[in-house]
Amino acid sequence: MRNPQLNDHGELRHLLSIEGLPRDIITHIMDTASSFLEVSDREVKKVPLLRGKSVFNLFFENSTRTRTTFEIAATRLSADVVNLDVRTSSTSKGESLLDTIDNLAAMHADMFVVRHAQSGAPYMIASHVGPDINVINAGDGRHAHPTQGLLDMYTIRHFKKDFSNLTVAVVGDILHSRVARSDIHALTTLGVPEVRAIGPLTLLPPGLEQMGVRVFTDMREGLKGVDVIMMLRLQNERMRGALLPSAQEFFKHYGLTAEKLALAKPDAIVMHPGPMNRGVEIESAVADGPQSVILKQVTFGIAVRMAVMSILAGGR
Amino acid sequence: MRNPQLNDHGELRHLLSIEGLPRDIITHIMDTASSFLEVSDREVKKVPLLRGKSVFNLFFENSTRTRTTFEIAATRLSADVVNLDVRTSSTSKGESLLDTIDNLAAMHADMFVVRHAQSGAPYMIASHVGPDINVINAGDGRHAHPTQGLLDMYTIRHFKKDFSNLTVAVVGDILHSRVARSDIHALTTLGVPEVRAIGPLTLLPPGLEQMGVRVFTDMREGLKGVDVIMMLRLQNERMRGALLPSAQEFFKHYGLTAEKLALAKPDAIVMHPGPMNRGVEIESAVADGPQSVILKQVTFGIAVRMAVMSILAGGR
Amino acid sequence: MRNPQLNDHGELRHLLSIEGLPRDIITHIMDTASSFLEVSDREVKKVPLLRGKSVFNLFFENSTRTRTTFEIAATRLSADVVNLDVRTSSTSKGESLLDTIDNLAAMHADMFVVRHAQSGAPYMIASHVGPDINVINAGDGRHAHPTQGLLDMYTIRHFKKDFSNLTVAVVGDILHSRVARSDIHALTTLGVPEVRAIGPLTLLPPGLEQMGVRVFTDMREGLKGVDVIMMLRLQNERMRGALLPSAQEFFKHYGLTAEKLALAKPDAIVMHPGPMNRGVEIESAVADGPQSVILKQVTFGIAVRMAVMSILAGGR
Repeated sequence: MRNPQLNDHGELRHLLSIEGLPRDIITHIMDTASSFLEVSDREVKKVPLLRGKSVFNLFFENSTRTRTTFEIAATRLSADVVNLDVRTSSTSKGESLLDTIDNLAAMHADMFVVRHAQSGAPYMIASHVGPDINVINAGDGRHAHPTQGLLDMYTIRHFKKDFSNLTVAVVGDILHSRVARSDIHALTTLGVPEVRAIGPLTLLPPGLEQMGVRVFTDMREGLKGVDVIMMLRLQNERMRGALLPSAQEFFKHYGLTAEKLALAKPDAIVMHPGPMNRGVEIESAVADGPQSVILKQVTFGIAVRMAVMSILAGGR
Repeated sequence: MRNPQLNDHGELRHLLSIEGLPRDIITHIMDTASSFLEVSDREVKKVPLLRGKSVFNLFFENSTRTRTTFEIAATRLSADVVNLDVRTSSTSKGESLLDTIDNLAAMHADMFVVRHAQSGAPYMIASHVGPDINVINAGDGRHAHPTQGLLDMYTIRHFKKDFSNLTVAVVGDILHSRVARSDIHALTTLGVPEVRAIGPLTLLPPGLEQMGVRVFTDMREGLKGVDVIMMLRLQNERMRGALLPSAQEFFKHYGLTAEKLALAKPDAIVMHPGPMNRGVEIESAVADGPQSVILKQVTFGIAVRMAVMSILAGGR
Repeated sequence: MRNPQLNDHGELRHLLSIEGLPRDIITHIMDTASSFLEVSDREVKKVPLLRGKSVFNLFFENSTRTRTTFEIAATRLSADVVNLDVRTSSTSKGESLLDTIDNLAAMHADMFVVRHAQSGAPYMIASHVGPDINVINAGDGRHAHPTQGLLDMYTIRHFKKDFSNLTVAVVGDILHSRVARSDIHALTTLGVPEVRAIGPLTLLPPGLEQMGVRVFTDMREGLKGVDVIMMLRLQNERMRGALLPSAQEFFKHYGLTAEKLALAKPDAIVMHPGPMNRGVEIESAVADGPQSVILKQVTFGIAVRMAVMSILAGGR
């Protein structure tokens, strides 16, 4: 079966998932992001690569933060961005998702950035649109969040240079996390020899071992000697649900404290996709400490999204 | 009485309604739209005609779709667009509509695109603003939706070339439809010899015959030999109201099916202003079939709105 | 203690409050605004001073009007503007204000325009951000609304030329008004010899006399011989509260009517920050009359905000 993300020449056509993305494309995105990193540092933070292109932010699920990062990335590439609050638009008037897409396509859209609560929605859109439109998955259900995965890889490469000798731990609610899924696929593809998943049994999905991941329910055990700690956000709704006793209880066992961090390598870096629940997943002393690279992730995220957009637009 | 849409030289100053719009102005708008159609096909989809102009989208009634088409049209003309969600703004703080308008005018607005639930609101605004500001009616109450009417005419001209030998049927809830009203005025002005209105008696306004329209309550009868079928959207609220038995019942009598479409001329085109209620006004096989030009209407709509904006800005 | 608004060379670094702003900086802002006034009158209403800069409108409290004025000012300086409806974003996901700020800063923001219901929030943000970011207070709690104060001063200077011989009356709900606070500080700093506060005892804050303000509870008494009348907006919630008998009663005693206006100097000007409650604070005949400069305030407001933004960006 053909990879829906690539065209016949094996070039990136849509970014839907890190699963199935060849290593050289991930590397190409990271290399391109490097060149964009300095654009955001300039006096005039703009390049004309997407001038006159129409980028639509289609957020069927609300996420001001993520939408903003894509809006900024597109704007710094000189694109025209239209933000569609799809929750209040035609879909609520009974129009189907694909009718909405067809309509926007008929307005000569160039790119759709799609966030949707339903896993697979960006795939459905990508397989529906014509050859002139690129689709970027900005998070679909529990499935994937590929630009987050890519910016996480960029961050690791920036600080650790080489993936081939790393031990990386992903900690928290792995079951419900599209970020975890994207990160694990990316780490595996890039050749990280040891990927660990740390969390309570109720928040660990089945099948992790088959993906080559070592599973730990004891955080102290799992953090020993790691180079990278990737914390996950605990959704508020989980804390209220049956899967967890309480936020306090979660923090006690799976919150990252300075004391637990000391079990990792001395130069280990601490990552978090944001927004953070301080005192739930992570202690403030760690979040703001010298090993935290959490804000660097945000900065790199803009460059990575600029890279993805420019590669998609150029590959057409 | 002077036509509030035209200046002393008979040039377009505001676009408020197709009623009272001279035929040569409608034709001029369509000719101008033709030249903009290729702009949206370019690598760089922009022309600098409205550079540095401030266009305000004043949507007192929510319509993401229509707002988006105006935003895209203005952006492709290089205007600066400000979207005002007026429902949550000063008007809710007790400020009058005209005070809001005066304030925005004092910020040196160039153009107001107005959608309002109350018929006539754009007229009130147009008669209030100074000579430097143009007003476009983006739909007012049950009264008018002139850019929809214009893009519908553009679509008919594109496919049928000449208006002088056509039979056109408008089908559905004509009573509540500003689109129907605008279309009927446009068709009459452009010299269409036979305009038909098809719908249940409860959804047909009085006075259609006086406008030169032939009225049919039997859809099969009304579709015989027509060149153009213009379906209307059935508002959800009507379906729940006393005017209609049910959506299923409506579809049975007034939904466009392949079987009913066969009664029209073989090369008849099918139009719909969107968003569609599939299975209520129109069968999917027809909506997506070879005679449907529904998505072409959307594409032409951008060009028509660019034409209206550029003519208004140029005529000042 | 250092003034947090100024850098080590005494240049403007943030605009947080008129309190503590040196007179020469206020004058410099007004002089700069003069030069921007004609930009909004041009065919192409844009100058490239902030091209490629990222301005974030952070409105933690809803104010479409004020947000729009900053958006227009930034756009006419060619900045890229991102509007963040912060009420629906990460802060509601439990993220702290400063984490939100850190994240946006990491996206290489250049300027934050902050409206917040809590007094002092813009100060907290300004003291937190790095040297590359400027903060503008767009209204914080009951504390300050410095750009409103500055545009009010610009308006007075425009019509009265000189501050040194004026009598200015501020009328209405002074207790809850950040506008009143900013205006009184500005008038005092610019050397206005007589500032009067007029309102019911329940809406007059203590300490006015210590600020050099003459207090009047009788509006007719207070208006005698004044050059400038600055009306304040009466918040709807006050009218329903215990502090006021009724809107009608308020209007009777403290509403500006033509009859009361006649007590001021014949060339007195009438100001209001908007949105107006006609028939509560002010009679329509006065609001729309020859002495009203209310819409001029709006026009000058754009130029003043452009001046503040360009001075902040240039001073870096």
